[in-house]
Amino acid sequence: MDQKRLNALIAQRLPDHALDQVFYKDESIYRRDVDRIFMRSWLYAGHTSEIPDKGDYFLFNLADESVIVVRGEADEISTLINVCRHRGSRVCTKSSGRTSRLTCPYHGWTYALNGELRGVAHMDDGFDKSSRNLKSVHMRILEGMIYINFAENPCPFDPIVEDLEEVLKPYALASARVADRKKYVINANWKLSLENYTECYHCARAHPEYSRGHGLTLGKDKMASLLDEVMARASACGLSEKYVDNSYPDGEEFGSGRAYTRYPMLRGHVTGSEDGKSVAPLMGTIKDYDGGCTDFQVGPISFGLAYCDHVVIYRFIPLTADTSECDITWLVNGDAVDGIDYDKSRVTWLWDVTTEADKLIIEHNQQGVNSRYYEPGPYSKMEAFTDRFVSWYLECVSS
Amino acid sequence: MDQKRLNALIAQRLPDHALDQVFYKDESIYRRDVDRIFMRSWLYAGHTSEIPDKGDYFLFNLADESVIVVRGEADEISTLINVCRHRGSRVCTKSSGRTSRLTCPYHGWTYALNGELRGVAHMDDGFDKSSRNLKSVHMRILEGMIYINFAENPCPFDPIVEDLEEVLKPYALASARVADRKKYVINANWKLSLENYTECYHCARAHPEYSRGHGLTLGKDKMASLLDEVMARASACGLSEKYVDNSYPDGEEFGSGRAYTRYPMLRGHVTGSEDGKSVAPLMGTIKDYDGGCTDFQVGPISFGLAYCDHVVIYRFIPLTADTSECDITWLVNGDAVDGIDYDKSRVTWLWDVTTEADKLIIEHNQQGVNSRYYEPGPYSKMEAFTDRFVSWYLECVSS
Amino acid sequence: MDQKRLNALIAQRLPDHALDQVFYKDESIYRRDVDRIFMRSWLYAGHTSEIPDKGDYFLFNLADESVIVVRGEADEISTLINVCRHRGSRVCTKSSGRTSRLTCPYHGWTYALNGELRGVAHMDDGFDKSSRNLKSVHMRILEGMIYINFAENPCPFDPIVEDLEEVLKPYALASARVADRKKYVINANWKLSLENYTECYHCARAHPEYSRGHGLTLGKDKMASLLDEVMARASACGLSEKYVDNSYPDGEEFGSGRAYTRYPMLRGHVTGSEDGKSVAPLMGTIKDYDGGCTDFQVGPISFGLAYCDHVVIYRFIPLTADTSECDITWLVNGDAVDGIDYDKSRVTWLWDVTTEADKLIIEHNQQGVNSRYYEPGPYSKMEAFTDRFVSWYLECVSS
Repeated sequence: MDQKRLNALIAQRLPDHALDQVFYKDESIYRRDVDRIFMRSWLYAGHTSEIPDKGDYFLFNLADESVIVVRGEADEISTLINVCRHRGSRVCTKSSGRTSRLTCPYHGWTYALNGELRGVAHMDDGFDKSSRNLKSVHMRILEGMIYINFAENPCPFDPIVEDLEEVLKPYALASARVADRKKYVINANWKLSLENYTECYHCARAHPEYSRGHGLTLGKDKMASLLDEVMARASACGLSEKYVDNSYPDGEEFGSGRAYTRYPMLRGHVTGSEDGKSVAPLMGTIKDYDGGCTDFQVGPISFGLAYCDHVVIYRFIPLTADTSECDITWLVNGDAVDGIDYDKSRVTWLWDVTTEADKLIIEHNQQGVNSRYYEPGPYSKMEAFTDRFVSWYLECVSS
Repeated sequence: MDQKRLNALIAQRLPDHALDQVFYKDESIYRRDVDRIFMRSWLYAGHTSEIPDKGDYFLFNLADESVIVVRGEADEISTLINVCRHRGSRVCTKSSGRTSRLTCPYHGWTYALNGELRGVAHMDDGFDKSSRNLKSVHMRILEGMIYINFAENPCPFDPIVEDLEEVLKPYALASARVADRKKYVINANWKLSLENYTECYHCARAHPEYSRGHGLTLGKDKMASLLDEVMARASACGLSEKYVDNSYPDGEEFGSGRAYTRYPMLRGHVTGSEDGKSVAPLMGTIKDYDGGCTDFQVGPISFGLAYCDHVVIYRFIPLTADTSECDITWLVNGDAVDGIDYDKSRVTWLWDVTTEADKLIIEHNQQGVNSRYYEPGPYSKMEAFTDRFVSWYLECVSS
Repeated sequence: MDQKRLNALIAQRLPDHALDQVFYKDESIYRRDVDRIFMRSWLYAGHTSEIPDKGDYFLFNLADESVIVVRGEADEISTLINVCRHRGSRVCTKSSGRTSRLTCPYHGWTYALNGELRGVAHMDDGFDKSSRNLKSVHMRILEGMIYINFAENPCPFDPIVEDLEEVLKPYALASARVADRKKYVINANWKLSLENYTECYHCARAHPEYSRGHGLTLGKDKMASLLDEVMARASACGLSEKYVDNSYPDGEEFGSGRAYTRYPMLRGHVTGSEDGKSVAPLMGTIKDYDGGCTDFQVGPISFGLAYCDHVVIYRFIPLTADTSECDITWLVNGDAVDGIDYDKSRVTWLWDVTTEADKLIIEHNQQGVNSRYYEPGPYSKMEAFTDRFVSWYLECVSS
């Protein structure tokens, strides 16, 4: 598909409607998506507590790319392309581990933890090691959350810090601990996964476990009045009253989206759990449950759900044109001890069951979209945010 | 592959020879096959007895398409495209079931059993429900057998009814019951599956279970004399003496093929079974076994084998360019009770074992055809009907 | 990819560097590889002892092609295309067996063991059987090793015989027995498998089991002095002192490469085994262990490792653009009896464990090469032979 035909397709999209089939199936559009969105946006990689010690690393894999996120000699974190500069082997082949050197398993080329090539054997005398360090990508840390950007000149991260650092501060995420992390493979184009995440129109029917405790599925007026009650308590509980709403900027900040919004919990639920009751000690400096919960966003495909006692981080990436991956991290208070202060299975229950349900929903969506009879329908009022995502997406891939 | 090159390929085909490799492998030819054959022909969907009650449904899936065949409020049967008019999800996700409404599992859009959109939440005030009913395809019923046609203006079904209704009448198929239904996935292009079904040149070697009871593998003269004996008894047994031979018409009726032919059973076999003995009560108004069996056909890819005590319906559809599906339905007398009047495993034995054998044969055929050394060989005298199918096929895909 | 763009890619390759990503991924380059290399080179098919009796056969499968290697009436060996001349079915569907006739499982067309069509039924009177014999490919035997060539006018085999017959004679491979044969599927382009096999730069790190007994990983001087000791003993042990070094010729002999080179074993190892000790009786006319081992090569993708007590034959073929197969045959003295004179698991141990390790290495190489950040690095001094292979390969696929 050339850009001209793609632009024509974009131009003929009905406002406030889902996308044409071709956007969910075409290989060339998929490759453009990766180039235009994923290679240029800030993407959640992981949490600093996952690599506490020198030489600890984990991999960030996306489509054909792999990045080693590793803690170095001076406690600094490097984000290195996981491709040996000799013949291209993956240098790290396990998803995480600890090592004093990054040694390629093929011919033993050895790199320091900052990617500098240190040891090679049998090379010609003129071989210049310094020209063969591991490549790297840009990295920034926000409250312990590590974000990477594949672009040579990435869109700015500072606006994200400016907007979110203060509002996230009460959760003390920098000192949080990872209670669990899971990946879900979804047999659908990544945009169908994103569209699913960006609206709660489907929650009432598809997620009874979520809906019985969360206010997003209420009518607008009901929700607004409940939220007023929450916000009246927020400050006393140690939470911010500020809002951030810049999810899908374009122009220079196009991959630097950020948001922080709050909504009320329901009927005695204080957190996102099976019974609505607390599942872990309060996070950071939070003093009490204020009856609300928090949505936040960093970059176009990484989201967070902050409860007073745990925080859930979502990341969506493409694997192929018709498969995507949802990666979820559950964070709890860094002082909490598994099995004593919290039960991991209770912490993860709600968003595990919800994501398993979404996986099926999204796959059925892809199956239907593949039909020649599919034509995009109109969005409901509850899909306004999905429309923002889709409109931004089209902007990104148009020339 | 453009039409011009395809036409050149068609022009250079040797008469009475198999097709070139490209017809069994090329993706663009496959897509044309779906467009030209499967989207325009009458296709067997299932039997009315599979959906006896209001709200009963089953799915008909073909390549990327899915149709809900459902019995409605007024006992009528609707054939609805299984794609929600909102964001395209499959509405029914199980292969069969019973429901009072067709409710999309994604956002809960709810359709009546006739496809009319009834319930939606949170849409803009100007939203016009009547413009968002489920799409549908054409449907006709012949003696309880449901046929669908995806074309907007389908080829006529009436000639099929005119030719077959009377000759099929003695079997009383409209009141028959489904003893069993099975699907076989064949790792081969759909045309190789069809070519296999349309000749019995391979039966002598590949299907000893079939050949020992059925006369199709005899020499022409021997078969003719045995058939004379059968036809002399047919009328007294309540069976028609009429023949229909219009399997692959072209022009306006190109997807409306139909046929009804008879041939003799062998050596004391009265039906298609492991031991040649009866496996169920006589069908409909048939009074006795006349020593013959019946081939019939409706549309280009749906076939029937009618014995005096059961009827077998075959349907072949493509799944992808190199996989196809054979769907078999076994019908018995509607008054017969499973476990008392018949044993399901005896009814299905012959055509299950034969189809499992054919699956392997067809897959080995595809493997050989994939070789650069393959060149189409000449058909035998026993493959005349396959040549009719192939010639008709080429006519369909030529411009 | 047209030839012009391919030639440009070839022209811009840095000398002594690995290949660009496109050579390991592109479908059109893969098809060209098959056409230019595998359809025109001498390829190891198997050993005469695998088909000792009349009617014994095995299949050689490569990408979409299949060849029946069968011993005929007069003890001659035929190499027949495994595609029936009727409608193209595979004639033999098992990987090996014994049969008096080659009968197609589809319609029973029956061929003699030399491929002549003998029996068909129901064909038109004018049908000429002699025009429908099984096709065949060229075949030559070197010391019991069967090589085939798909080309109509293959590159010469005589130079291979002239160069290798004498030096291989002491092993008496023509009367050897197959101790075992295994296939390893590698999820990587065939060239990455070849590049792996053609260098021992990776051995020190990746193959400790091999490196502790074999001298290839030593420094050049150390190895040379050890080799001198071996060669001083070779003649007395019954082994040749001759060398052959013509692995990747071009011009008319481009697919007729051959080589025979020797290198020393280490620290009391007399053969390639877990403990370095003998695993089978001495081969052929060899009188004693001379402390060395032998690499030999026939054609571009078939290699041999000759120890004094067993011989290992490697063959690499492509299955698809991103999968390849390594086929290994272990030969021992023809008089040796399994379980008495040798233990099969001891004979196969070293190269099984080494190949399983290589499979992973090669697959990690493919994964890294798939990254957009991959760029070909420089070869080490120990990869000179890989560079010869790669340079020859590029010559073959350039116009």
